[in-house]
Amino acid sequence: MDDDAGALPEKHQFSEWYNDILWRAEIMDVRYPVKGIYVWYPYGFALRKHVYQHLRDLLDRDHQEALFPLLIPEQEFMKEAEHIKGFENEVYWVTHGGTTPLEVRLALRPTSETAIYPMYALWVRSHADLPLKIYQIVNTFRHETKQTRPMIRAREITSFMDSHTVHATWDEAESQVESEIALTREFYESLCIPIIISKRPDWDKFPGADYTIAVDTIMPNGKTLQIGTVHHLGTHFSKTFSINYEDAKGEQQLANQTCYGISERCIAALIGVHGDNKGLILPPAVATIQIVIVPIMIGKRHEDVLASAQKLEEELKSAGFRTRMDAREMRPGAKYYWWELRGVPLRRELGPRDIDVGKVMAVTRLGEKVPLDRAGIADGVNRVLAESKGRRAYEEQPVPGKFN
Amino acid sequence: MDDDAGALPEKHQFSEWYNDILWRAEIMDVRYPVKGIYVWYPYGFALRKHVYQHLRDLLDRDHQEALFPLLIPEQEFMKEAEHIKGFENEVYWVTHGGTTPLEVRLALRPTSETAIYPMYALWVRSHADLPLKIYQIVNTFRHETKQTRPMIRAREITSFMDSHTVHATWDEAESQVESEIALTREFYESLCIPIIISKRPDWDKFPGADYTIAVDTIMPNGKTLQIGTVHHLGTHFSKTFSINYEDAKGEQQLANQTCYGISERCIAALIGVHGDNKGLILPPAVATIQIVIVPIMIGKRHEDVLASAQKLEEELKSAGFRTRMDAREMRPGAKYYWWELRGVPLRRELGPRDIDVGKVMAVTRLGEKVPLDRAGIADGVNRVLAESKGRRAYEEQPVPGKFN
Repeated sequence: MDDDAGALPEKHQFSEWYNDILWRAEIMDVRYPVKGIYVWYPYGFALRKHVYQHLRDLLDRDHQEALFPLLIPEQEFMKEAEHIKGFENEVYWVTHGGTTPLEVRLALRPTSETAIYPMYALWVRSHADLPLKIYQIVNTFRHETKQTRPMIRAREITSFMDSHTVHATWDEAESQVESEIALTREFYESLCIPIIISKRPDWDKFPGADYTIAVDTIMPNGKTLQIGTVHHLGTHFSKTFSINYEDAKGEQQLANQTCYGISERCIAALIGVHGDNKGLILPPAVATIQIVIVPIMIGKRHEDVLASAQKLEEELKSAGFRTRMDAREMRPGAKYYWWELRGVPLRRELGPRDIDVGKVMAVTRLGEKVPLDRAGIADGVNRVLAESKGRRAYEEQPVPGKFN
Repeated sequence: MDDDAGALPEKHQFSEWYNDILWRAEIMDVRYPVKGIYVWYPYGFALRKHVYQHLRDLLDRDHQEALFPLLIPEQEFMKEAEHIKGFENEVYWVTHGGTTPLEVRLALRPTSETAIYPMYALWVRSHADLPLKIYQIVNTFRHETKQTRPMIRAREITSFMDSHTVHATWDEAESQVESEIALTREFYESLCIPIIISKRPDWDKFPGADYTIAVDTIMPNGKTLQIGTVHHLGTHFSKTFSINYEDAKGEQQLANQTCYGISERCIAALIGVHGDNKGLILPPAVATIQIVIVPIMIGKRHEDVLASAQKLEEELKSAGFRTRMDAREMRPGAKYYWWELRGVPLRRELGPRDIDVGKVMAVTRLGEKVPLDRAGIADGVNRVLAESKGRRAYEEQPVPGKFN
């Protein structure tokens, strides 16, 4: 970070604030030499990792993770007419291998239906294979011609969770749609992001779906941001890709399908909904660093304080908290500013006097100060994080759609 | 799996055995409609996940994970002459977005130097920024014209760990090369894969390196398989990409660099080195399923046995073991065959008599039978896994390079 960069814009200038916080907090670097393509800094990458790990944990209850190819041959991609129409203007095409033109052009997946469903046609044979519930988390590509923004509208979507299920009947697929919506609600509730769930009008549904349910949040600039979609595909793709199963009577039936996606826009929402004029505010469950320890090293008790801070760091790390002890040669105030900008949920200040009285001051990212006993510190930290003002504010807010 | 598929080829017919085990054990599906591009089944994906998690754990000790773009603009890719020469015949080129030709062609990364180093030129300013040690795990692409094989020679390498470090001096970069080799040795030792480490002759070094150290293993067909490389890049790329730092005296210096890669060939090696005529043999640390419980449900104690098996499953899961209870309507022998094929390290058989005497029979994948007390079962399991014949055989083997 460049220290001469001046102050963070205020959050009511949301567009400037968002662009600025991404590089100041080292989330993404926008200076990669291709429009709409960005680089995850380590600090941002770790946030992304924890958010997607949380999503994986929810999905792994009854889905399996797999991995399908990025490159889709033109003939598969072109099989489903409505689907092509929805994507044809934004597909990147690979046409050459070395200096040789390819016999068949290859699409970079803008979405994975046409990569996955030829395999599902091979994998699904009988009703005993159903339901099939598989997801992947992958990079996808869209040649966006509109204005691009990191995580919100990008040409490489680096992290797209893409779930595809297969069912015997239309009604079973509909139940699955409901269960994916419930999962999405749980995911965003745990990130304290209020959502609005709505069935999309026909003109706005996914190309090839019977119907589409969209999940939106409202960003600080008042605009909605679509942060999840669930589609009932009916037998639309199973007809095209011959995904059939033998039912209990030995007859061939067309399968019913759903698909469901959450892109890295979930992280854009996390940043946008929670931040303030000081910087990021990260929910403890997904924060890159959950606790920062700032030793107040004054005068001759310098080494005493440093040793105590190191001991505290070890103890919190063993208790499972992502902890960083900041012993840099900087004023404590500058360190507070640094870690507030980066959204660390809890700061522990530790000076000579705290050591003497067996206390540690805990300061939440929202400014609540709680002196905690040094003994049994892990329990105290858990309590402060669970009861913090941010969580309470979320639970009390009257946002439409939150519990609908 | 198709039950009519006949027997697994014997392992001395290695090529047939390898191809067969991949689909029988549901590791990868080779039927994707593009040559050299494959699909990870959920069972294989989980194995891949555990192997790469293990690699991440080792790297995270002193590297940071980040994520750089897949698409590299032609002018960056073409900057370094030797490097281009090494890759020009196998690079996939994106030439169109929708129906519109792109102004600048985009390469799918065959390797990431030219995506990462323009960013490093921005990130590295002063000696205080060094050393910089960053890795990513990404998909990379090579238009292979030779015969392709899953995980060994593929057009989409779905999981390439790619580490790139920057140092002040050539000697510091050399120390880093040594430390990457030590890390590679630790990684493969923990997977019980013997390795041979060698400095490559000049004609075989990485395009743009001062020198290359290769890590090979010997596959059952007697051929070496390169399963890791570490390159000292000197100032070769820092010159081209202007990666400079200000030293302590305030003078600009060229940085020295290393890069280091481990692809999904590590999983090919894991499968090839350890399997036998019955199927996969997976080291417990990375096995998709570590313990399978087979209830022997005979006669009227059917429900009693099932309840005990479920209780055992819960207990082993809470102790942290990846456990599956197999209550399918199949003969126990067919289940043994099924899970042996899939390489599960430990099978627990549980019948009425075992319940009566408070024992559970544990059978390792290598056929060792150990009756364990039902009480304190987790400790017993840990002991059996740690002491199993496979681990002992690895530790006793006189393979060159193993501890060199």
